Amino acid sequence: MAVSPASRCIRWGICSAGHISNSFASALGSMPPMEHKAVAVAARDLSRAQDFAKLHKITNAYGSYEELAKDTNVDVIYIGTATHEHCRLTLLMLNHGKPVLCEKPLASNLREAQEMISLAKEKKLFLMEGFWTRFFPASYKLMDEISKGTIGEVKLIETIACRCYKGTVPEKFASLELSGGAVTMMGCYGIQYCSMIFGERPVKIAASGHLLDSGADGQTVVVLTYSNGRTGIVKAMINVSTPMNVTVYGTEGSMEIGPIQWCPVEVKTPTETFTFPVPDTATELKSPNKGGFHYQAEAVRQCLLKGELENSTMPHEHSLWNMEILDEVRRQLGVRFPADDKYSVDK
Amino acid sequence: MAVSPASRCIRWGICSAGHISNSFASALGSMPPMEHKAVAVAARDLSRAQDFAKLHKITNAYGSYEELAKDTNVDVIYIGTATHEHCRLTLLMLNHGKPVLCEKPLASNLREAQEMISLAKEKKLFLMEGFWTRFFPASYKLMDEISKGTIGEVKLIETIACRCYKGTVPEKFASLELSGGAVTMMGCYGIQYCSMIFGERPVKIAASGHLLDSGADGQTVVVLTYSNGRTGIVKAMINVSTPMNVTVYGTEGSMEIGPIQWCPVEVKTPTETFTFPVPDTATELKSPNKGGFHYQAEAVRQCLLKGELENSTMPHEHSLWNMEILDEVRRQLGVRFPADDKYSVDK
Repeated sequence: MAVSPASRCIRWGICSAGHISNSFASALGSMPPMEHKAVAVAARDLSRAQDFAKLHKITNAYGSYEELAKDTNVDVIYIGTATHEHCRLTLLMLNHGKPVLCEKPLASNLREAQEMISLAKEKKLFLMEGFWTRFFPASYKLMDEISKGTIGEVKLIETIACRCYKGTVPEKFASLELSGGAVTMMGCYGIQYCSMIFGERPVKIAASGHLLDSGADGQTVVVLTYSNGRTGIVKAMINVSTPMNVTVYGTEGSMEIGPIQWCPVEVKTPTETFTFPVPDTATELKSPNKGGFHYQAEAVRQCLLKGELENSTMPHEHSLWNMEILDEVRRQLGVRFPADDKYSVDK
Repeated sequence: MAVSPASRCIRWGICSAGHISNSFASALGSMPPMEHKAVAVAARDLSRAQDFAKLHKITNAYGSYEELAKDTNVDVIYIGTATHEHCRLTLLMLNHGKPVLCEKPLASNLREAQEMISLAKEKKLFLMEGFWTRFFPASYKLMDEISKGTIGEVKLIETIACRCYKGTVPEKFASLELSGGAVTMMGCYGIQYCSMIFGERPVKIAASGHLLDSGADGQTVVVLTYSNGRTGIVKAMINVSTPMNVTVYGTEGSMEIGPIQWCPVEVKTPTETFTFPVPDTATELKSPNKGGFHYQAEAVRQCLLKGELENSTMPHEHSLWNMEILDEVRRQLGVRFPADDKYSVDK
């Protein structure tokens, strides 16, 4: 379903009314209304969808995802549910002819991701994993400086993203049913940095960590060994607070991107610091840099206008690498999701 | 061979005339002469021993280690050779009734370390692995702040020590014959920090990395998983330059020790920075903070004066943990030393 070039406005349907969907809709609400418009929202609970619609000035609110899938007034779906629902809802939307931008990680496991990408190809519909990080100007700047050889040949990527939850761990981190855990929820960003910078699959994956009482991982370190003497280290923990940045070491120096790796606004090269403030958002947001959703939303719009089924900055292949790494990390940690034992026939 | 309390001066014999022995002898030369005195040095090459003796004002120079072992004028031996010789020379000295301070890592592998410690116990002689790091005031300060709960419960230790050797890698790093490699030569410091702070053996060891053409490791990351949700990360690489510090994360904040992890002079708590300048040395030294050898030399002297066979700051048990970790890391990396296939009968 390519958007007619005559209408350059992309009409978004929002799947789920949770925290991340709120951030995304808030960013959309501050973009040019002739280019982006949230026109529908669906949640399992109609009243939540209605509250969301009211806050973000969205016309249609649905109490089921199926209704949203059938809304012919929608050009593209944003899926902001918990991870365990990504596959089922993406398949639902694709099967109703809707292109999809699905939050990270793309799925609970590689098998689901493969199924989603296969269906998108079969239906000739756009599908992208929502790693908004890659579309921040700071990320492009980092990649540009790396290509220019500013730090020589990159040999080590250090990513750290740990926050200390004292007392109760949020359900999305603690729940196997929601396909949660520290590496899936936070480590995925570090993993995608390694995929982005090294541009290949690792040759070896070594992980170790600690599990929460729920069986999900709460403290995980992943060592990704790549060809040609290159290594990526991904740290994701919920029992300590650390910096949230990424440091890239090359043979001639190092660069840092941050201060928060998933929404970076600063790149420090050996000689300069470049800052890239994010755009404003329509509603006030608790989470930092949520205006950065502008970049990703516009990237999706450009793909839809050009009829592209895949985005070159966040291609399907990288999503598959990311999922393959997450699967192997969980295997080494002994973490299994209920989703791992479900097949599409159940969905 | 306990030192007579009447003579409180410790007479040192220096085994090898290389870089590290020079640093150690230089530190000794600036300590009170009524307490510490280097009285003999041995090297495989007599002229090197003689040059060394001249530089450090040492009376006796030998062209073989056996002669030093037999010198009855020596109270304790400092072994500063490459790692592959640590076991053979320690056994030699112990068999001649000499207490030994042996450079890190204590041996090429756990089996050798066990043999050395067994013989020291059997002969009732002092033996210590020369992790001078632990005797720096900064290390005591770090441990003190940790015990006081300054950062809550420690959950993560991050140690990094990488330096970029462009072109030729020094032989001690590249050579399997010398029991070299990045993790053995540099990573051992990070490993001993984990042993010191967590005070137990890890429950899991995961390592990955890259080997040099020589077969020794050139880029290694070790993840040490400890009981009770605690993790240590050790990075040792010779193809990038990184900070050289250690960061300790607790549930209530973090602390940093550095700037160079093996000779730390600064501890940063969440609220304060404490600095501990090292003493001067007798001769000018290229390597930083070599005056810090004062602390270790004096710790050895105190043990000898008290007739202690083991130092409580650097106990045998920790040396065995360190060696066990190094062995397992090398096993996972596929690094085998010629020393691994030798037994004491060959020594």
